[in-house]
Amino acid sequence: MMSELRKDPIVGRWVIIAPERADRPQSLEEPELDPLASDPFLEGREDITTPEIYVVRDAGTRPNGPGWKVRVIANKYPALGIQGDLESRGEGMYDVMNGVGAHEVIIECPHSETNLSHLPVEQIREVLVAYQSRLNDLKRDTRLIHALIFKNKGARAGASLPHAHSQLIVTPIVPITIQEELDGAMAYFDYRGRSIFHDMLVQERTSGQRVIAETSHFLVFCPFASRFPFETWIVPKTQRSHYEKASRSEIDELGDVLKKTLRKLEIGLEDPPYNYIIHSAPFNAGELPHYRWHIEIFPRLAGVAGFEWGSGFYINPVPPEDAAEFLRGVRDE
Amino acid sequence: MMSELRKDPIVGRWVIIAPERADRPQSLEEPELDPLASDPFLEGREDITTPEIYVVRDAGTRPNGPGWKVRVIANKYPALGIQGDLESRGEGMYDVMNGVGAHEVIIECPHSETNLSHLPVEQIREVLVAYQSRLNDLKRDTRLIHALIFKNKGARAGASLPHAHSQLIVTPIVPITIQEELDGAMAYFDYRGRSIFHDMLVQERTSGQRVIAETSHFLVFCPFASRFPFETWIVPKTQRSHYEKASRSEIDELGDVLKKTLRKLEIGLEDPPYNYIIHSAPFNAGELPHYRWHIEIFPRLAGVAGFEWGSGFYINPVPPEDAAEFLRGVRDE
Repeated sequence: MMSELRKDPIVGRWVIIAPERADRPQSLEEPELDPLASDPFLEGREDITTPEIYVVRDAGTRPNGPGWKVRVIANKYPALGIQGDLESRGEGMYDVMNGVGAHEVIIECPHSETNLSHLPVEQIREVLVAYQSRLNDLKRDTRLIHALIFKNKGARAGASLPHAHSQLIVTPIVPITIQEELDGAMAYFDYRGRSIFHDMLVQERTSGQRVIAETSHFLVFCPFASRFPFETWIVPKTQRSHYEKASRSEIDELGDVLKKTLRKLEIGLEDPPYNYIIHSAPFNAGELPHYRWHIEIFPRLAGVAGFEWGSGFYINPVPPEDAAEFLRGVRDE
Repeated sequence: MMSELRKDPIVGRWVIIAPERADRPQSLEEPELDPLASDPFLEGREDITTPEIYVVRDAGTRPNGPGWKVRVIANKYPALGIQGDLESRGEGMYDVMNGVGAHEVIIECPHSETNLSHLPVEQIREVLVAYQSRLNDLKRDTRLIHALIFKNKGARAGASLPHAHSQLIVTPIVPITIQEELDGAMAYFDYRGRSIFHDMLVQERTSGQRVIAETSHFLVFCPFASRFPFETWIVPKTQRSHYEKASRSEIDELGDVLKKTLRKLEIGLEDPPYNYIIHSAPFNAGELPHYRWHIEIFPRLAGVAGFEWGSGFYINPVPPEDAAEFLRGVRDE
């Protein structure tokens, strides 16, 4: 069975049903990260991965051979595939779409390394540029509407390989979380005539109690209504709805900001599993005055995720003011 | 700091910030379930719990002493507390409310037992009646608007004690998940003139491929847009928006249906951690023709929960048709 996008008829949430991603029900076991020894993402093992879609290479090296810095490949077990028509159909009262889209892996370095934050800042910038480049390429396919770029770090955060990598899933629909943000930000803009992201940064900078760091282009803070302990957002100061349109100077600075933010979380919380997600406007929207791309980071601290899973109802035992104060105090040696 | 309800200004999601539920950031460690030996919920240890709010007792026994079947107490580390004014205020652009509400624990049996499904069906019925009774009592407090009844079974599902128990959190707001269901169901009703739950049951019964079981009052099935492998819903056939108004004959049958459904999941998936949540309409709503209470069950199978956590974007590797077929075939010995 090919993968499908199915819409929940009550709340309108699209779900990807991707049977290629599992074998039998019985095989759903605790994930164990393959040791780095058998790491398929290492330089020199390009022949055991899918072919590269994007790459940063040394001059004179051959495609799909050694000599690269960052490499983007198709996910071996894709949730969505690029082939096929975007057929939307009803199944009685339900709505279904073929699982058209793309699922790619961004390999963040050629050597054995599990933490993006351990890489030199120039290397992190190459990763951030690779994200932009993939989005700019994929959005030319008019069937595709939105891309989520995300990282699962650590088995408990959903990673199946320890080698530093992130993923990109492009869909023919806008995920409900992004749609809710777009709708909420639009309502605020209609009512107030200003971007909610602008107002939020003004208030966070004025109060300062949830701020972790500030640079020329970014504010790093724990959001007022944090769902999870140490939830951290990186929000650009410049109004721009699409991540792929961020300027080179912003991306350069983001490399540094992301590295330092992840280091704080890793040092302060003892190398926790975490996820980050880049929130960005849909491909088919022009520049939106009310929406702003940003990065949300969630350390996955055990013992605090209860029935949030599936209920959307969050209880957070760590006030964001305390989390920010703690993280401000964490110093990289 | 007292707990607070905080509203995310972009998407309107309320979050409970409950600092009493954690000590220091450093103490956020992997939960280990206390062994049953030190079980505070055992009969005879009533003096080490908070006093009982509701109880099913043998005649002639004393409050907060032995001789009970089901016992409801206040959570020792409550996310919300019943004292105080429901003061709603702005903090600049943000909205906050005092953490007024209730957080209770339903102890499902007096003896050492971790699985609700192992209890006799009469005992499960007492638990389901206790839920109703608590809701009917709490809704008399006009500050309170909604109650979520849920179970965290197993450490990985958020439980901190192994003794069979469930929880109830009553809030002065409607959780966003329930609000989205209410809005979606209302839109469908306005457009079609029928309850979406009615139409869903008609289609599920006709197709049959996602049905696990059917009784006079209930349909048990894996929903079309299942977010998680083996996600299972129990939906009543009778239109009724509030769980607390279910009839005694429905509750009697539900005891049997819930026991059998949980047994199937436990036998088929090797005693997985799981959550269930009772979805029910807000206290301050009259009977709603478009909404129907129901139970959603999520087995927490490792290795399949990735970045869904916080993104609202779900990839499910097990089609609900396969999950239902598998569960239909599971027999209790």
